[in-house]
Amino acid sequence: MAWHAVQALVFDVFGTVVDWRNGVAREAAPFLERHAPGRVDAHDFADRWRSHYVPSMQAVSSGRRPFVRLDVLHRENLEAALRDVGVDPAGVPASELDALNLAWHRLDPWPDSVGGLARLKTRYIIAPLSNGNIRLMLDMAKRAGLPWDAILGAEVAQAYKPTPQAYLRTAEVLGLQPAQICMVAAHNGDLAAARQCGLRTAFVRRPAEHGPGQTTDLHPQQDWDAVVGSLDELADLLVE
Amino acid sequence: MAWHAVQALVFDVFGTVVDWRNGVAREAAPFLERHAPGRVDAHDFADRWRSHYVPSMQAVSSGRRPFVRLDVLHRENLEAALRDVGVDPAGVPASELDALNLAWHRLDPWPDSVGGLARLKTRYIIAPLSNGNIRLMLDMAKRAGLPWDAILGAEVAQAYKPTPQAYLRTAEVLGLQPAQICMVAAHNGDLAAARQCGLRTAFVRRPAEHGPGQTTDLHPQQDWDAVVGSLDELADLLVE
Repeated sequence: MAWHAVQALVFDVFGTVVDWRNGVAREAAPFLERHAPGRVDAHDFADRWRSHYVPSMQAVSSGRRPFVRLDVLHRENLEAALRDVGVDPAGVPASELDALNLAWHRLDPWPDSVGGLARLKTRYIIAPLSNGNIRLMLDMAKRAGLPWDAILGAEVAQAYKPTPQAYLRTAEVLGLQPAQICMVAAHNGDLAAARQCGLRTAFVRRPAEHGPGQTTDLHPQQDWDAVVGSLDELADLLVE
Repeated sequence: MAWHAVQALVFDVFGTVVDWRNGVAREAAPFLERHAPGRVDAHDFADRWRSHYVPSMQAVSSGRRPFVRLDVLHRENLEAALRDVGVDPAGVPASELDALNLAWHRLDPWPDSVGGLARLKTRYIIAPLSNGNIRLMLDMAKRAGLPWDAILGAEVAQAYKPTPQAYLRTAEVLGLQPAQICMVAAHNGDLAAARQCGLRTAFVRRPAEHGPGQTTDLHPQQDWDAVVGSLDELADLLVE
C-alpha cells in the first residue's frame, strides 16, 4: 500500500478509540439503582441503549428526518431503552435524563489510544470521523486527552456514516482526495463504506468492545490496507 | 461581569491570535521578487491582498453567492491583488499561485498566543471562531502549536462573520447559550456583532496588526466585558 500518499488519518471513535460499553454502564449504574433497583444490569442496559443507535440514524440517512446531532438521538434512544426495561421515562426528572445522556461525553479511551494518537499526530493530520457530534467529541477529548487536530465527522458533514456523504464531505473539508485519507475503525462495515468512497482503510481489533461474548468484528472481512491490534501498533507501522 | 457563567472562549484568529501581515509578506517576498522584481513591497502586497477580504465575503453574506470556504476567496483575491500591482496572474503557473495561497496556513502566532491559550484551555473550551476554513485553521494550529479543543468558525457555521448566523450557529454546535460564550477579538466590529447576538466580549489590543501606521482598532469602542493587551493577560484575568 502506498502509505506515503496518505496525509490524514480519520477515526471511528465509539469502540475504536474509546470503550463505550463500560463507560455507559459505569454512568448508568447509579441511575438504574435509583429507578429500577436490583432489576437491570448496567451492561445490559448499555447494550440496549446502543441497540437503538443504528435505527435512529437510519431515519436521518434515509431522508425521513432532517439531520439532527447525535446528542438528540441519544436522548430519544435513552427514553426508548428505559421503556424496554420497564422504566417509564415520564416518571424521571428531565434533568436526570439529560445528565445521563452525557455519559457518552465521558467515555474512557482504550489503554493504547492516547499514546498511539500522539505518535500518529507527529506525521499525519488526525481527526475523528465519528457519528458523535462536535460537542460530544470535544468533551470526550478534553477529559481523556485525545490530541485531535480538528473535530470532523457527522455534524460537520451533516451526514451519518455509512452514507457516502459522511466520507466524501470530510475529504472535501480536508482539501484532500479520498485516497490521501485513511479511515481507521474496529468495524468492517465502516471500512467497507469508506473503501467504496476511495479512502484507505485500517482495521483495529477491539474484541472486547461488546463485552466478553462479542461475536461481531472479531476479524477483518476484507483485505484492509492495515490490520492492527491497537493504535500503538498502527503507529509502529506508520511512524518511525 | 458574570464570568463564572462563561464556558467557552471563541477567538478571532487573523490579527488576534496570529500576525497575518508579516506572515503573508514573508511568504510573498520571494514570489514578488520573481514576478515583479524590485517593484512591489511585500508588506504593501499583503495589505492589498487583505483589502479584498471583506468585499469577497460580502458576496457570500449578501446571498449573491453560495457559501465557499475562505481558501477559495483567498485564491481569487490573490489574482485580484496581483492585477492591482500590474502582474498578470494568467502569466504565473497555477501551481505557484496555489502555493502562495497557502501563506495564510503558515502564519506565526503573536508571542503571547500559545502560552495564553494553553492557560485558558485549562478552564474553558477554546476554539477559533474565524472566517478561515477548517483546513486552514488546522494547518496553522499544527504548525504553530495552537492548542484548540475544536475548530469552529465560518465553515462549520456555513456563514461568515459578522453575520449573526456565524455566532449563533457556533453557540448551537457548542450546546451553549450565547451568554455562556465569550468572543475574543482585536476588532471592535467583530465584538459588536457578537454582543448583538448575546455573547460576552473581550478586546485584545493588537496595535501592530496593520503595521507601524495602524489607525484602526487601537482602542475599545464599547465597554467590552474585558480589555487586555495579550492572551496572557486574558489568562491572568480568567484563570488562577
